[in-house]
Amino acid sequence: MAPSFAINDGVNGGRITPPSTTGRFASVYSEVQNSRIDHNLPLPSVLKNPFKIVDGAQSSAAGNPDEIAKLFPHLFGQPSATLVPGGSDTVQSHQKLKIGVVLSGGQAPGGHNVISGIFDYLQERAKGSTLYGFRGGPAGIMKCKYVELTSDYIYPYRNQGGFDMIRSGRDKIETPEQFKQAEETVQKLDLDGLVVIGGDDSNTNACLLAEYFRNKNMKTLVIGCPKTIDGDLKCKEVPTSFGFDTACKIYSEMIGNVMIDARSTGKYYHFVRLMGRAASHITLECALQTHPNITIIGEEVAAKKMTLKNVTDYIVDIICKRAENNYNYGVILIPEGLIDFIPEVQHLIAELNEILAHDIVDKDGLWKKKLTDQSLKLFEFLPPAIQEQLLLERDPHGNVQVAKIETEKMLIQMVETELEKRKQEGTYKHIFKGQSHFFGYEGRCGLPTNFDSTYCYALGYGAGALLQSGKTGLISSVANLCAPVEEWTVGGTALTALMDVERRHGKFKPVIKKAMVELEGAPFKKFALWRDEWALKNCYISPGPVQFTGPGSDAISRTLLLELGAQA
Amino acid sequence: MAPSFAINDGVNGGRITPPSTTGRFASVYSEVQNSRIDHNLPLPSVLKNPFKIVDGAQSSAAGNPDEIAKLFPHLFGQPSATLVPGGSDTVQSHQKLKIGVVLSGGQAPGGHNVISGIFDYLQERAKGSTLYGFRGGPAGIMKCKYVELTSDYIYPYRNQGGFDMIRSGRDKIETPEQFKQAEETVQKLDLDGLVVIGGDDSNTNACLLAEYFRNKNMKTLVIGCPKTIDGDLKCKEVPTSFGFDTACKIYSEMIGNVMIDARSTGKYYHFVRLMGRAASHITLECALQTHPNITIIGEEVAAKKMTLKNVTDYIVDIICKRAENNYNYGVILIPEGLIDFIPEVQHLIAELNEILAHDIVDKDGLWKKKLTDQSLKLFEFLPPAIQEQLLLERDPHGNVQVAKIETEKMLIQMVETELEKRKQEGTYKHIFKGQSHFFGYEGRCGLPTNFDSTYCYALGYGAGALLQSGKTGLISSVANLCAPVEEWTVGGTALTALMDVERRHGKFKPVIKKAMVELEGAPFKKFALWRDEWALKNCYISPGPVQFTGPGSDAISRTLLLELGAQA
Repeated sequence: MAPSFAINDGVNGGRITPPSTTGRFASVYSEVQNSRIDHNLPLPSVLKNPFKIVDGAQSSAAGNPDEIAKLFPHLFGQPSATLVPGGSDTVQSHQKLKIGVVLSGGQAPGGHNVISGIFDYLQERAKGSTLYGFRGGPAGIMKCKYVELTSDYIYPYRNQGGFDMIRSGRDKIETPEQFKQAEETVQKLDLDGLVVIGGDDSNTNACLLAEYFRNKNMKTLVIGCPKTIDGDLKCKEVPTSFGFDTACKIYSEMIGNVMIDARSTGKYYHFVRLMGRAASHITLECALQTHPNITIIGEEVAAKKMTLKNVTDYIVDIICKRAENNYNYGVILIPEGLIDFIPEVQHLIAELNEILAHDIVDKDGLWKKKLTDQSLKLFEFLPPAIQEQLLLERDPHGNVQVAKIETEKMLIQMVETELEKRKQEGTYKHIFKGQSHFFGYEGRCGLPTNFDSTYCYALGYGAGALLQSGKTGLISSVANLCAPVEEWTVGGTALTALMDVERRHGKFKPVIKKAMVELEGAPFKKFALWRDEWALKNCYISPGPVQFTGPGSDAISRTLLLELGAQA
Repeated sequence: MAPSFAINDGVNGGRITPPSTTGRFASVYSEVQNSRIDHNLPLPSVLKNPFKIVDGAQSSAAGNPDEIAKLFPHLFGQPSATLVPGGSDTVQSHQKLKIGVVLSGGQAPGGHNVISGIFDYLQERAKGSTLYGFRGGPAGIMKCKYVELTSDYIYPYRNQGGFDMIRSGRDKIETPEQFKQAEETVQKLDLDGLVVIGGDDSNTNACLLAEYFRNKNMKTLVIGCPKTIDGDLKCKEVPTSFGFDTACKIYSEMIGNVMIDARSTGKYYHFVRLMGRAASHITLECALQTHPNITIIGEEVAAKKMTLKNVTDYIVDIICKRAENNYNYGVILIPEGLIDFIPEVQHLIAELNEILAHDIVDKDGLWKKKLTDQSLKLFEFLPPAIQEQLLLERDPHGNVQVAKIETEKMLIQMVETELEKRKQEGTYKHIFKGQSHFFGYEGRCGLPTNFDSTYCYALGYGAGALLQSGKTGLISSVANLCAPVEEWTVGGTALTALMDVERRHGKFKPVIKKAMVELEGAPFKKFALWRDEWALKNCYISPGPVQFTGPGSDAISRTLLLELGAQA
């Protein structure tokens, strides 16, 4: 079925001109990209043959089931669904469907494969069906901006990174007017189903849409898919979110390279900040893959109520101990969201927002008298550049921009100051040189690993099966991921079962709770067991670049291996 | 011959405990690292059979041959040497040699393979020979710090990145005392030969050592090897320096990922600074691999005598044109050394160094009156943060630290300012958001590509052959690199032929001139031909991660392909 392509000279790599004038128009593909397009994706065996759906027991909610029941009267309590071999193939292949798909939120490697999974399901199991891609995220639903996804349109995006096939967006469908707009769009397109590919918020939104459509007696079903490189959307039935595997492997490649550099040069401490604001899964996974000398896990900092000074001292103590072994170099991993985990920083920022809203910052520092003692102490402890940043860089609402603080640079300065103090005291005699790194955008759009390619394809294919089976308000769930692909299980989990409520503006709002790093979970415990050895010896591992064939090409994340192993 | 290894559980990847207690002691290797250790390296066919050396014509110098002749009375005019099939195997295999090897300067992927190439040559062609590795660079020669490199010692480093087998250093052997120390070391170890693996400076130093030893009638021969990720050590006989291929592929992987991210998100301009201070080869190669919207090549900026304002305007003009096509995103590559190529910046810095040595920076800015008009204008044009950095951050000699300026951030600020101006004028209406990246350390220590692995092994193997053949003052030269490996040519080029002189402190000093990006060369011309199209359309290529097997694994750099194609 592959369209033919004009391949240009070897210097530019193969040039691919997709037959359609939309899509990756006149894109030029590298040899590796090209080779991935036709990469054959294995399917779990249950998806390769006729299947039927088996419902599980009635579900509840992650918390406050009574409130969730009130918010989702039609959907609450739905059983989870599992695909099992059997059923009649004829029913499945004679029903034509109209399905919409939307990408929501930040990019994660594998999104294109979810879409091609849905498409291929429809092609193979519901011939004559139509798949629409909403452009630019949920706004595309509200504004009815869409494209019909055809075989030719999808082809160049198979197994490719990015979300550029239909792009994504961060809008939410929230107000009654917006729900009405969504209703009009799905009715205009006569949609039987909608697949929402997104993180915790987007899947909550998907469930609200499912409830809304059901309440209005509309035929449109809604299925979610778990997407986020941060790895914080997961539960027993949904063992991981897609993109996490690829992003962590790309970051770990870079960390491994920096480690070999550190050991070869012997004179730098590399402070590496990694994406992941709400949870530290990425940092933990990269630590398990590479064995850095120091790793800060936000959830542990919060649990131990550590201050910024505590974190600094922890780092400095290890640097001093390493110096005794003549190791004046190392690698330190820091989660992007570190300072969000430190209560005293949150207090300081709240106070600053309050003070700066009313007062000007006088040169003599009289304004500081309005800070509480604890916040003043912390403020004085911060490096001058960070103090300045807190005072000067404000968002349009006048608030301090915490996200703009380069935590790795801040820590380098604080470590420098503390080491200088210890030099004065005679407890440290060496030269400290810090190098800062931030690995973020580089990992969100990489070519999906074999794992993410296959996992996403199964998620999409399974979502098609759930829709065709009349399911709504479920999140596509592919599990048993440590087994060979043929043995992966496929089904759907009630989105309401993942929910709790939060009180906002006097109302209960449903939320899918982010899965944080569990300090009692197997990945953290494994890390905790080894970190002291990693701190003082150099046990660096360099995972190297992601491979698509040969050794290492079928590796899955340490987090998944350990979590699934622990459940077994 | 492989020692046996204990492989631990799958979670940590294979653990390798080298049998020796030195080396990568108790290192833990990833699956990919492990698979690379036993990767079989092909040799050029001339190295697989008995060979003999054929001398070429008498050589001259890159410039000022009379002065070079005076500086190298024993070596000047040496012919280049080429290995050809033939000769007697018996002579080669009966002579035992004692050889030293040293890594000099910054790291480049493949250094370990040069060493294993030398080692294997000695094992196979001069049984009973000894190879010493000097520790920590040229200082190891001067201080006689070395390790005997055995099969077991070398094994875990085969095809691995980094220089950690014996580490490197940036010291130079310069003073008469230092030459004397080197003499004592090679005499103490009774060395027949020394291989210096390094960049232009280190190879100049190698030639000075060769001349010194020859002058003293010592038996120690010296052979250089071309190392630098910057790609600025090359000539007709030495088509590329090792490490360039791997580093550029790693950077291009990251750039390609950022491009897909830019296109998917549709709202950021990514400013990517790339390593390469003296020459812009890395930036040019990455541009040829990935097709960014804007690429700044330092050599062109210098040739066109562009000012910082010109560079800013060039970028802003393209951003405005792209906005007309509704592309408010893009990717911009900048060489690390950009501002070194801009004469007005050099003038400003020279004036600042002069003024700041004598005056204090008064708040009212009276000190600025001492700047020339041109420098004052430039200073006022710079973003405040950069002004401050120029005034405050000084090295121990009181000089402005140009290297510390984050050029990509500076350009973002200047572009912001200019776009703001155009908004006021009504010629630009959109939102500009810049994201900065620096790709440097991540590329210096990656796992060497198949190309670098094989090229380095041949360089080392060939260096062994040159030493055994009694050659000195040559740089190991492996060429015909676009042909299959069997057809690669092997030999040595007179280091004096690469040299010119520079006048320093009233004396002539020999230098191997850095190979800059040639504006008339094929790689730049190809880039210049396409850049306007890349600027306005999006022709992004995402090369993906380096592959060791399968599609893309045998790719060689665009620069090499184009340069060798152009010579053909």
